[in-house]
Amino acid sequence: MLFKITIAYDGTDFVGWQRQASGTSIQGLLEEALRDLDEREVTVTGAGRTDAGVHALGQVASFVLHRSMESPALIGALNARLPATVRVVAAEEAADTFHARFDATRKDYRYRIWNADVQSPFERAYAWHVSGVLDTAAMGAAAALLVGRRNFAAFQAAGSATATSDREVFSSVVTAPKTCDPPLVIYEISGSGFLRHMVRNIVGSLVEIGRGRRPVEWITQVLEGRSRSLAGPTAPPHGLVLVAVEYGLQSP
Amino acid sequence: MLFKITIAYDGTDFVGWQRQASGTSIQGLLEEALRDLDEREVTVTGAGRTDAGVHALGQVASFVLHRSMESPALIGALNARLPATVRVVAAEEAADTFHARFDATRKDYRYRIWNADVQSPFERAYAWHVSGVLDTAAMGAAAALLVGRRNFAAFQAAGSATATSDREVFSSVVTAPKTCDPPLVIYEISGSGFLRHMVRNIVGSLVEIGRGRRPVEWITQVLEGRSRSLAGPTAPPHGLVLVAVEYGLQSP
Repeated sequence: MLFKITIAYDGTDFVGWQRQASGTSIQGLLEEALRDLDEREVTVTGAGRTDAGVHALGQVASFVLHRSMESPALIGALNARLPATVRVVAAEEAADTFHARFDATRKDYRYRIWNADVQSPFERAYAWHVSGVLDTAAMGAAAALLVGRRNFAAFQAAGSATATSDREVFSSVVTAPKTCDPPLVIYEISGSGFLRHMVRNIVGSLVEIGRGRRPVEWITQVLEGRSRSLAGPTAPPHGLVLVAVEYGLQSP
Repeated sequence: MLFKITIAYDGTDFVGWQRQASGTSIQGLLEEALRDLDEREVTVTGAGRTDAGVHALGQVASFVLHRSMESPALIGALNARLPATVRVVAAEEAADTFHARFDATRKDYRYRIWNADVQSPFERAYAWHVSGVLDTAAMGAAAALLVGRRNFAAFQAAGSATATSDREVFSSVVTAPKTCDPPLVIYEISGSGFLRHMVRNIVGSLVEIGRGRRPVEWITQVLEGRSRSLAGPTAPPHGLVLVAVEYGLQSP
């Protein structure tokens, strides 16, 4: 039986989604839990590789289970074998042809910035602390310029080897705090797929614009320059959350 | 100079606000930081004693500093001497007669319940995990019955010795999640002051009602019975947050 599961995790204590030579990965934890459950080696395929410190509300993964199980029992059995920082929140049987990574048609990411003099003790692992004034209207205007099918090489981690740097961004929005809200600036981006560090490099560039160091149009120059050296610094991983992965046709 | 400071803290790793024979307390951390700063013993008075595991967004404390400092410098100096889980978010000079505990006229608490089959990895230290259906309308109706000046002995930790169990509750409200919101049931209560475990015992009782084990009117019977044995179980500390402490006249 091929299963598709949805996983939420607090990435703080992990080396990232993917198994590494050392350190604890989400993939590794799931594979160990499944090996215990299915009494054989099980390979887990994730929709996307989140970096160390990056969180997920809706990571998706797939694997083949030899023993037959109902979804609620599978959720319970996996969660009983996982730390509280990793929770399987949904499970369903999927078609034998399903592939968590190749079949994904949309991914939604959120990046959280705590924009205040003092970092919140509750956000230290979940939001980038940026003090000083941020022009969130300018950040939003720049974010909107990234929508569409484009070559995002400028926002790709240096040294990455991918077949193509073309990706389609469906939406790219900055939400500013209202009066009385916590001082959280939220950046949300949905796209067909993302290059390594792409969201974090976009956020680092948007913050340069928010700080007034660069004008709004600079983001287009960076994009068109297609060189990582033109973009802003990489925002830290702990502000980033993989919110959801969608499969199937995307409405235009 | 007498200072009034506002402190936010993640209570997870602490024995509570108050200094204990062993373990780390918020009061202890602040007193150590101030001793280092003022080169003498400094006593910190808090507005309220939060239990181990209870959090604060707006705890208030006062202390006398011999050396003269501007508020922003004091905030910076204290935060540099505190762990990231404890943050001084505001500081101001106060009148010599100010007392953080005795002068408080209102305290606002929030209790968070994660009402879903699977606990969120992000809420494990910040919300009580209650699975199964909760009738939040019934919980809200019962919560409203607690407003007013009353004897809250029924919700006081057994064995507490206080001059009086009379307290005034200004507001007591349950907010239910809307469709698409995270499944967080939020209870917010404001009052003149709170007895030991009062909020947690109220929440434990409201959840009994939410689960359908008790009718709405039961909360009035519990209140009028004035005995801890009548109320529901004590809700765990990690769902509780001291949101704010107000001073000065309260509008009716």
